[in-house]
Amino acid sequence: MPPATAITPTREQDYPEWYQQVVRAAELAENSAVRGCMVIKPWGYALWENMRGVLDKMFRATGHQNAYFPLFIPLSFFEKEAAHVEGFAKECAVVTHHRLEADGNGKLKPVGVLDEPLIVRPTSETIIGATYAKWVQSYRDLPILINQWANVVRWEMRTRLFLRTAEFLWQEGHTVHETEKEAWEETRRMLEVYRDFAENYLAMPVLTGEKTAGERFPGAVATLCIEAMMQDRKALQAGTSHFLGQNFARASGIQFQNREGKIETAWTTSWGVSTRLIGGLIMTHADDNGLMMPPRVAPEHIVILPIIRADADREKVLAYCEETAARLRAQIYDGASVRAVIDRRDLSSGDKGWQWVKKGVPLRVEIGLRDVEKDGVFVGIRNREKKEGFSRAEFIARTPEILATMQREMFAAAKKFRADHTREIDDLAEFEQFFTPQNADKPEIHGGFALSYWCGGAACEQRANAQKITIRCIPFAAEKTAGKCVFCGQPSGGRVVFAKAY
Amino acid sequence: MPPATAITPTREQDYPEWYQQVVRAAELAENSAVRGCMVIKPWGYALWENMRGVLDKMFRATGHQNAYFPLFIPLSFFEKEAAHVEGFAKECAVVTHHRLEADGNGKLKPVGVLDEPLIVRPTSETIIGATYAKWVQSYRDLPILINQWANVVRWEMRTRLFLRTAEFLWQEGHTVHETEKEAWEETRRMLEVYRDFAENYLAMPVLTGEKTAGERFPGAVATLCIEAMMQDRKALQAGTSHFLGQNFARASGIQFQNREGKIETAWTTSWGVSTRLIGGLIMTHADDNGLMMPPRVAPEHIVILPIIRADADREKVLAYCEETAARLRAQIYDGASVRAVIDRRDLSSGDKGWQWVKKGVPLRVEIGLRDVEKDGVFVGIRNREKKEGFSRAEFIARTPEILATMQREMFAAAKKFRADHTREIDDLAEFEQFFTPQNADKPEIHGGFALSYWCGGAACEQRANAQKITIRCIPFAAEKTAGKCVFCGQPSGGRVVFAKAY
Repeated sequence: MPPATAITPTREQDYPEWYQQVVRAAELAENSAVRGCMVIKPWGYALWENMRGVLDKMFRATGHQNAYFPLFIPLSFFEKEAAHVEGFAKECAVVTHHRLEADGNGKLKPVGVLDEPLIVRPTSETIIGATYAKWVQSYRDLPILINQWANVVRWEMRTRLFLRTAEFLWQEGHTVHETEKEAWEETRRMLEVYRDFAENYLAMPVLTGEKTAGERFPGAVATLCIEAMMQDRKALQAGTSHFLGQNFARASGIQFQNREGKIETAWTTSWGVSTRLIGGLIMTHADDNGLMMPPRVAPEHIVILPIIRADADREKVLAYCEETAARLRAQIYDGASVRAVIDRRDLSSGDKGWQWVKKGVPLRVEIGLRDVEKDGVFVGIRNREKKEGFSRAEFIARTPEILATMQREMFAAAKKFRADHTREIDDLAEFEQFFTPQNADKPEIHGGFALSYWCGGAACEQRANAQKITIRCIPFAAEKTAGKCVFCGQPSGGRVVFAKAY
Repeated sequence: MPPATAITPTREQDYPEWYQQVVRAAELAENSAVRGCMVIKPWGYALWENMRGVLDKMFRATGHQNAYFPLFIPLSFFEKEAAHVEGFAKECAVVTHHRLEADGNGKLKPVGVLDEPLIVRPTSETIIGATYAKWVQSYRDLPILINQWANVVRWEMRTRLFLRTAEFLWQEGHTVHETEKEAWEETRRMLEVYRDFAENYLAMPVLTGEKTAGERFPGAVATLCIEAMMQDRKALQAGTSHFLGQNFARASGIQFQNREGKIETAWTTSWGVSTRLIGGLIMTHADDNGLMMPPRVAPEHIVILPIIRADADREKVLAYCEETAARLRAQIYDGASVRAVIDRRDLSSGDKGWQWVKKGVPLRVEIGLRDVEKDGVFVGIRNREKKEGFSRAEFIARTPEILATMQREMFAAAKKFRADHTREIDDLAEFEQFFTPQNADKPEIHGGFALSYWCGGAACEQRANAQKITIRCIPFAAEKTAGKCVFCGQPSGGRVVFAKAY
């Protein structure tokens, strides 16, 4: 049996450090020599590839195509949308030279100054907009529905693996429409794709809603978002879909001849999710034993661990493992073959087992000579306490159902956690108490999400912000009830979600 | 029937301009506002995704995993391998600042100077090497077999879509081995993967061999390559696999405890292909009517073109098209469903047909009321002159075979072209004549590949280089025969491939 705790420290002892240790122990990623840039290791990258695969299918099913645009943005493009440049100017990697030359001491120096500095894209509205302006002439050219999978750079001062890194991987959808209505429909449609993906694939419950003016994407008319609760009860913005109105179209000159033959400015949207989702997945599902992968996106569903106590058993045990793996792979889960791997490394089975617990593989199947003799398997299900014995045939036949159950249970557990730490609060003293850490040693542990009335005023929002509490969203889901702002007592049209956040 | 020529100019009239026009007409890519950086349009990107999908499977089948490393390389890392930095210093995008600030006139300027300039990766040996140095402790950690799909930047002065761009997409494999022998095996294995991919998927015949010292990757001990002949008879280096010896391992400090308990320096390889392959595909297969896609990597295998002459026919014709598409998609070609799309746009069928010819879709299926009535289809096969009528059932049943035949014929045609323009030449006057354009108006049209003896000396290689002729490779395939160097008459151990090149 595993000891009670495999990750040091536990969540309870030191949540931020626990997170780093889970990422390390699961071999997802590590810091590189370049400030704020991470190395995504094979197990982490395979997770990202699975996530990307699912999202890509969803984007295609909603009519989008992939394309690829330049990494660099000329400074003059970037300047075109005032709010946009203001939002990103503080965290840009700027390319200024295009050559290196040795100085007198043989030390390399940048030379060859560029006529115009280039920004490494933090997001691509402006460079893509310049291209779209050329593509769009007539309403017949619309809509344009394009997505890009790319790396982007935001020179953040404080970084944390997956959650906030200088370089990250993401997708950015950029669409152009004939009418405001269509652009709004697109904005909502893609938010719904994100909700579906987060909840049904990552098993991560999210609230959907609109950001306040203060929390909007720089240059957007409206920003919709999905917000998830992490195990330290903080919120994570997990995806955003922006209705850009005509702001960027005007800045880039995306105009078209409408059905009446008149020139009009187009309506655009953009929407993105990133490797940040991996941080969300970890902080939703990992426990004090390490990561727990939702089966639908797990790089492997099953690891088979041969237990060889004597050299004489080796051939027999390995042959049985091989056969079991082949039969498992013939099973269909979630529309494709079950993913099973055999770990043949020459390590103690305890060490191997623990490594896979920490990596979060859904099912660990231990096979020793005794199992071979009785045609059985001994299975650890990652979200259950105890290992269980099965007849091999039963286990193989039931694998898809076991995985589906685990996926469902993980979502239910996360939903319960969120419900347990979400409260409707109408009293300011209670509100402040809710967000006050109960223990000075663990400043991160507080109440969770407060659903409270807000008058819509910036002053009251800033009162929350001063306590490091932000309005995560004005939720779509909540039934709109009338009440009084928790800060100022003025009338409010509905509760909003207050939380501390990443 | 199409007119004789759809791309203006023809290959004969102006080959370089014909290339640009094919890329444009096929909607593969276009230049962006950023010098040398291209926009890869949906049809071009879908081709790249298919190519990537095939290569990715081949890499997995040979034991590799994907991972992701930082975009930026600290200048000090880059300097560690002397030949390497010398090879890339002249074409680096250098990040020097991390913020923008408005000056007195409200103009944005880069501020926040980085302590150390960062190079946007032109290739990742040094940054990946630094990570591997941490991962490798013991021979038990070897081999490391990792591939990365990424964008890279080389600040080329003269750029051409796909063939030479400042930013391009590629994969770079980086492996670490215990022994020289294993690293050499890996280097050769991956070259063979590239040959297989180029010939059997892109239908692009390639010569395989080793580069001369003068043409090696900066820092490599040996560079192996695949070389293809374009329709202007110039060579295109289409992929390289480098045996890096211990050069980069030494520079990065990749050391391990060997089986005898001693510390040793590891052996590394790297290998890559890029979006340049798309340029190769175009210049191997496109004709004066536009692109021709090899079926195995074509974004769509079939376009169905409804021909609606009267509104009354519309429903009937479209229903028949739908049913045909569904039945085609149920056919299996190359291990997956046939990819078929219906082009319902409200354009004349002539215009639509031409657009798809230029885009190079393998099969165009025209369906009008007459076809519906006789349960037939009228099919244009992209590498045949004339369209053919089929009964619908026959066409659907034969589609996989028609596609396979087309793939085979495209390869055979390209092989014949190469054979027709490759000559064994032992006489210097003939050699020079072979590379002399026959027509001053078309400086690019010359003999092709000359297989000639070379003494191995740099002086003779430079004599060729002075005429813009390079040694493309010292081929593996040729039987080694003894002869005399075509330049100096000294003894030579075998013929090498001389050509003008991209």
